[in-house]
This record gives sequence, structure tokens and C-alpha cells, in this order.
Amino acid sequence: MARDVRMKGFAERADVEVVEAFLAERTRALPAEAVDLLECVGRVIAEDVSAEVDVPGFARSAMDGFAVRGEDTFGASAYDPLRFRVLGTALPGRPFEGHVGRDTAVRVMTGAPIPVGADAVVMAEVCTESDGQVEVREAVAPHRHVGSVGEDIRCGDLVLRTGRRLRAQDAGLLSSIGVASVRAVRSPRVQLVVTGDELLPAGSRPGGSHIVDSNSVVLRALVRRDGGVNLPFEILPDEIEVIRDALLADADVILVSGGSSVGQEDHAPRLVAELGELDFHGVSMRPSSPAGVGHIGDTLVVLLPGNPVSCMCAYEFFAGPCIRALAGRSREWPHRRVTLPLARKISSAVGRTDYVRVAIEDGKVIPIATSGASILSSTVRASGCVIVERAHEGMPEGALVEVRLYDDEPPAGTLP
Amino acid sequence: MARDVRMKGFAERADVEVVEAFLAERTRALPAEAVDLLECVGRVIAEDVSAEVDVPGFARSAMDGFAVRGEDTFGASAYDPLRFRVLGTALPGRPFEGHVGRDTAVRVMTGAPIPVGADAVVMAEVCTESDGQVEVREAVAPHRHVGSVGEDIRCGDLVLRTGRRLRAQDAGLLSSIGVASVRAVRSPRVQLVVTGDELLPAGSRPGGSHIVDSNSVVLRALVRRDGGVNLPFEILPDEIEVIRDALLADADVILVSGGSSVGQEDHAPRLVAELGELDFHGVSMRPSSPAGVGHIGDTLVVLLPGNPVSCMCAYEFFAGPCIRALAGRSREWPHRRVTLPLARKISSAVGRTDYVRVAIEDGKVIPIATSGASILSSTVRASGCVIVERAHEGMPEGALVEVRLYDDEPPAGTLP
Repeated sequence: MARDVRMKGFAERADVEVVEAFLAERTRALPAEAVDLLECVGRVIAEDVSAEVDVPGFARSAMDGFAVRGEDTFGASAYDPLRFRVLGTALPGRPFEGHVGRDTAVRVMTGAPIPVGADAVVMAEVCTESDGQVEVREAVAPHRHVGSVGEDIRCGDLVLRTGRRLRAQDAGLLSSIGVASVRAVRSPRVQLVVTGDELLPAGSRPGGSHIVDSNSVVLRALVRRDGGVNLPFEILPDEIEVIRDALLADADVILVSGGSSVGQEDHAPRLVAELGELDFHGVSMRPSSPAGVGHIGDTLVVLLPGNPVSCMCAYEFFAGPCIRALAGRSREWPHRRVTLPLARKISSAVGRTDYVRVAIEDGKVIPIATSGASILSSTVRASGCVIVERAHEGMPEGALVEVRLYDDEPPAGTLP
Repeated sequence: MARDVRMKGFAERADVEVVEAFLAERTRALPAEAVDLLECVGRVIAEDVSAEVDVPGFARSAMDGFAVRGEDTFGASAYDPLRFRVLGTALPGRPFEGHVGRDTAVRVMTGAPIPVGADAVVMAEVCTESDGQVEVREAVAPHRHVGSVGEDIRCGDLVLRTGRRLRAQDAGLLSSIGVASVRAVRSPRVQLVVTGDELLPAGSRPGGSHIVDSNSVVLRALVRRDGGVNLPFEILPDEIEVIRDALLADADVILVSGGSSVGQEDHAPRLVAELGELDFHGVSMRPSSPAGVGHIGDTLVVLLPGNPVSCMCAYEFFAGPCIRALAGRSREWPHRRVTLPLARKISSAVGRTDYVRVAIEDGKVIPIATSGASILSSTVRASGCVIVERAHEGMPEGALVEVRLYDDEPPAGTLP
């Protein structure tokens, strides 16, 4: 316990915008991989997709009724119905194999292939069938109630462009054109490196001089939200060799939480500088001023302070946008933003970017008064955050501010 | 193939609002189940959660520096520093076991327990240590730079209320108070019943008179979005006994796609009426007029038309809100809404609710001109939908309309 305690401040703090610009320049969508159709929703495709088939591939009935040659119905009316001989039935997936000629008809269900020779469908509502014949009380023009080959998608159509984040219906469309898997941007693999001898794993009961790790719980959920894949994780002892090994993980992004300041036990910054490059360490922001950014080979390393609010804030500023960008998504804040007046002023300092947790009540924005970066409960009480930019000394009561909401949930449901 | 084709129209069509109100009355959050802390984000808790511990459970240093008795520093200044004997070091998770008395100090790192006897921390920046002594150049009041017991959360605090949809930081907070699992609303189990002899399973190549099932692909993704769990699924033959068995599945919700109109092969409505109750069949809407709603025991059954756009539309109107409500979430549209002017008029008919796919270009809403409910590609081209309510004959060019967006994605990222 009698080790030397080296303590010094940060030589120089970088501006938030400088770090953001550096990261935006450096992080691009990862290479593509094949993704199964049933897993592709939410992923970003890395190729233009064109249809290699027509959908539908056959003319089909858009109605329940009778397939006929349209011209044969000309003159039919309720007063002067025309009669057709019924040859059989066509059902979806079960075509009628014969030929429809003059004054003959085939019963069809919606979606059934139109039999050869027929070119129109008379709706069941204007037909009466008996004794192998059908009486038609309305004329139909050729092509009426017939879905033509390729009416949904034509062979060769460009259906989805590269960079598209797939929605449910996009996957449905891919299915309909016979696609079984798509090329999508690979999901970034994210390794958490959480150190701290005071930490107990999530699910433990806190006690003595130990607290339970919450940062990994928050970070893993945010990584998932942003399209990353969490690699296996355990809390590491604050030992230099262990952290060195962890920083050499095969990952696209390493998030270090704890041990990233400038005190005795803060091995991570020195190790990043030794194994790769420590691009920034110390940022003019509150909280999270001890945050840092570096890289080891192609792996991005983000140093997140151990205090829970600082950790979350530094994630949202630096790590989240990069993980989204690596996944091919927009770097932008992934939830809604709302603009509302401030109920109370926010104080800040020129030259420093502030991340202020706020609640929203009665259409007003209420800064959550709290001193500390260690007060995780402030982020739980908050609806979102307001960023006070470097050039501002704060914001007065009544000023319109943009709140980045913490989720997209509409007003809550009611439990029984 | 020579089976009887019974075709008749719907006796009476229900108004959309009537069906919605019926469902809103009938679907409430499911009972709770235990959910592991690491899986709880996005789930809705079904209990108030109070802390059974203080966080932190011990007074801790908020700074790197020296723990002292604050009153002993009074009078210290850069011109007149005071000297303290250094007894040892306290690190996070590794307390100093001795007692701090008059004019003694213990080195502390941020997060370290404050040693017994000390009540304040002097920042390292105003201290100089040498030869077992530390020179202090600034006075600190008692409690300065000390995080007190329970400063984040106090034992007994209500931290999360029932009905809350958990966010990343909520899970972090639960972790910090030693919670390993929470009671959350059970996720509704959803069984798809997709029938159609014309259908090939997703991943197949379409051919002949067969098309590839897209509805199950779309529905499974929407069910996941809405907090449901998809039960195992395969396309069923259009046979009455097979569909009967499927309708008796142990599920909270059954979504029937295809075979839900009033034609010969449409077994599902009759079977629902036979096995339970067919509450509505036929709705005054376009598309999706053949949609229906029923229940078999406690299982909600939603009949979705087989045409892809109708299927998706009926899901969004009737099934989606119920699945979200069963999961404890808001029934409301789960994505953003934007209000913008119409670039072209929308025609509708009084007495019928229309679901219009629209694109957004240059800040204007463009209805996607398409005739058919079978044109899935129209939903892919669309940014969202506009609902034209029953009382309206349509909407003129320039009218402000609310668009329900199909996703929450900010403007797209750039691929390399």
C-alpha cells in the first residue's frame, strides 16, 4: 500500500468538437458480411439490390370471381346477362391447366394464376353460377382485376440502395424477390474493459468498500442500441499486464471504463500510448473531462471515466457515434429531439462543453440539480440531456433549448 | 379441383375506431415474470423498485488527494502551507484501515473510502508530498470533496415506478443497488399462422405459380419491434384441420395471414367463430377491409389479409397496438410522427378509413400512387403512412397532414 502516488493534471484539454471531428474522419462503415434474411432488419445493406425475377411471376387474379376473355363480356348487364361455360377452378398455387376460349370461364380466387386465354376477371358479386354455367351481369375490359407480371417488382428493378437501414417491409420485399441473405455492413465488435478493485459484478449485492459495476450494464445496452455486438466481458483487476492483454483484444472498438484518468492506478492511457496512439486525453467538457480517444492498430479505443454519469456522457459523445458509423448508420443522436423553453437557467463556463441532464415537466425543461458525475440516479430521473456548447456561458430561463431524449417511447401505457 | 366455390361479401363492415376501441378495452399488460438484469432494457417493469441499500454504502473521495480532518486545514494557504503526516493510502476497494487524527493525512484516489477520522479531501493539485509528509496549500471545509453515504441513492428510495420501460441507465441503477433481476411484464408470445398453397418459404426462389412468403418476414420483424416473442413458425397448407390445430396454439396472440376473407379457402374466420368468438370480420378501411378480430379463450386472434400491404396495414392498426399493450407499452404508433404539407391531394371516401403510403421529398408529403394492396414495393418506397379518417373525403393539396414514419432513423450515414 506504500506505493508512490503520482498525481498530475492533464497537460492540455481538447475541445469536444475537435475530438468529434477527428473521430468522424476516422470511423467509416465496416466491410460487408452475408446476413440471413430473417436477421437483416435494422442492419445497413452494403450493396444495391436489384430484382432478378418479376413479382408476381405470373398474371394473377386480384379478385374472387371468374376469369374470362374481357371482350366476351361486352354488352353484359343486369338486364341482359351473358352466359359462360365454367371449365374449372384456379386457386392460388393451383393453376387451371386448360385454355379459356370464347364464352368460357374459370372460377378464380384472389391470387390465383389467370388461366391461359383469359385476360380479365369478373367479380363474384356480379355473377351467378348454376349447372356448370355462370351468368355475368357486368362487362369487364381486358386486364380488369388482373395483376400483371411484374406489377409489384420488375426483373432488373433496383429495389434497395446501398446504405439503407432495413425496415420490416424491406425484408419482406427481399423475401418476395427470392433473396435468402444480403450483404450488410458488419456489426462492430465491442470489447468492454472495466477495471476497478472496488467493483463487484452486476447482480451482486454491494457491501463494505465495494460498489456494484453499473457502467458495463449501461454500456452493453447502449452498444446494442447502436448496432454493436458485445464481446464476452468480465471485470478486470487493476493490473497493468491484465489491462495490456485486454487492450490487444480482437475488437473493432474497445471501451475502457475506469482507470482512465491521470492518477496512479490509471494504466489505460499509458498503455494505449505504448501499444498504439493516444490521440486525445482530457477533453474540455463536464462531466467526462478525463475522457480520451486512441487507437491500437485498427481498433478504436475510447477511454471513459469511471464515474457513471461521466462514463455515459463520454459514451454518447464519442463512442456511440463511432459505433453507429462503423455499423453503417448515421452518427446522429439516435433518439428524438424536442425543443422547449428552460424552466430555470443553466450555468456553464465559456470554453467548456456541458452535458446537462434535464427533466421535462409541463412542456418545460428542468435542469436536474446535482453536483456530481457519480450520481447515476440523475440520469434515471432525466428525460434527456441538453448540450451547452463551448461558446456559451450558460442559458437563461425561458431560452429555447434542444433536448436529446433518452428514448423514443411514446407516453407510457397503463398497467392494470 | 372441382370443389364448390362459395363466394359472398361481408354482411357488415365495422368502423376502424370501433374495432380499435374494442381492442383497447380488451388488451391489458400481461402478468409479470422475473427478467435478468442484463436482459431488462426495453422491458416494462411491473413493480415499484425501491433501494434496499445506500449508494454509495460508504463515504468516498470525489478527488485524487489527501483525506484529512477539514478543520486541521484552516488557515492553510500558498504563503502559509500546513504540514500533515502521511499515514498511508486508500484506493477504491482497498480502504486504509487506520484512523486519521489531528494533523495526519491519508493519500486517497477518487472513489476510495474515506478513512475513519477524516472528513474532507484536499485536492492533489494543492499538495506537495515528500519525506512522509504532505504540505497543504489550501484550506478545505469538512465534507469537501467527500461523497457521502447515499449521495446517489438512499436506502428506501423509490427508484423506478411500475410501468416504466427500462432504459440503459435504469438497468445501470438497478445494478448499483444490487438487483439481479426485476419483475417485468411478460413478453407476449405471438404465433403466426400463414397459409397458402401458393407460398414458398422465405429464402426460396419464386417460380411457376408460386410466390415467396413475405408476410411472415414483415410480421416477425414488427412483432419483435413491438416487444413480442415469435413462436416457431412454418407455412401451413390451406387445410381446415391443420388451421384448426394452429388456432389452438398456446400463444397470447395469433396472427393469421391469408385465408381470412370470405372465399372458399378462407377457413380461419369460420374456425375462430367455432373455437371462440369472431368479434369483427370486415372493416371499413382500405386496404385491409377483410381484416378481422376474434378470440379463442384468452388468445387474441387477428385476421390479416394475405395481400402484403393489407397484411401490414391491418397489423399496424389492430395487432401492433395490442402486442405493445400486452407488453406493457403504449398502444401509440411506435415511431416518430411529422406534420408536413401534401404535395398532391389524397382522394378517399366518407365512411372509410384509408391507409396511404407516402414519401417525403423536399419537406412535402407525396402520396404513392398505386392501385393495389398487393404492391409491397409501395411500402418500401414510402417513408411512412397517412391515415385519412372516416369523416373525410380526402385531403387537398397543401393540407398539413401527420405522417407516421416507418422508422426512427436520422438521415442516413455515408458508406465508403
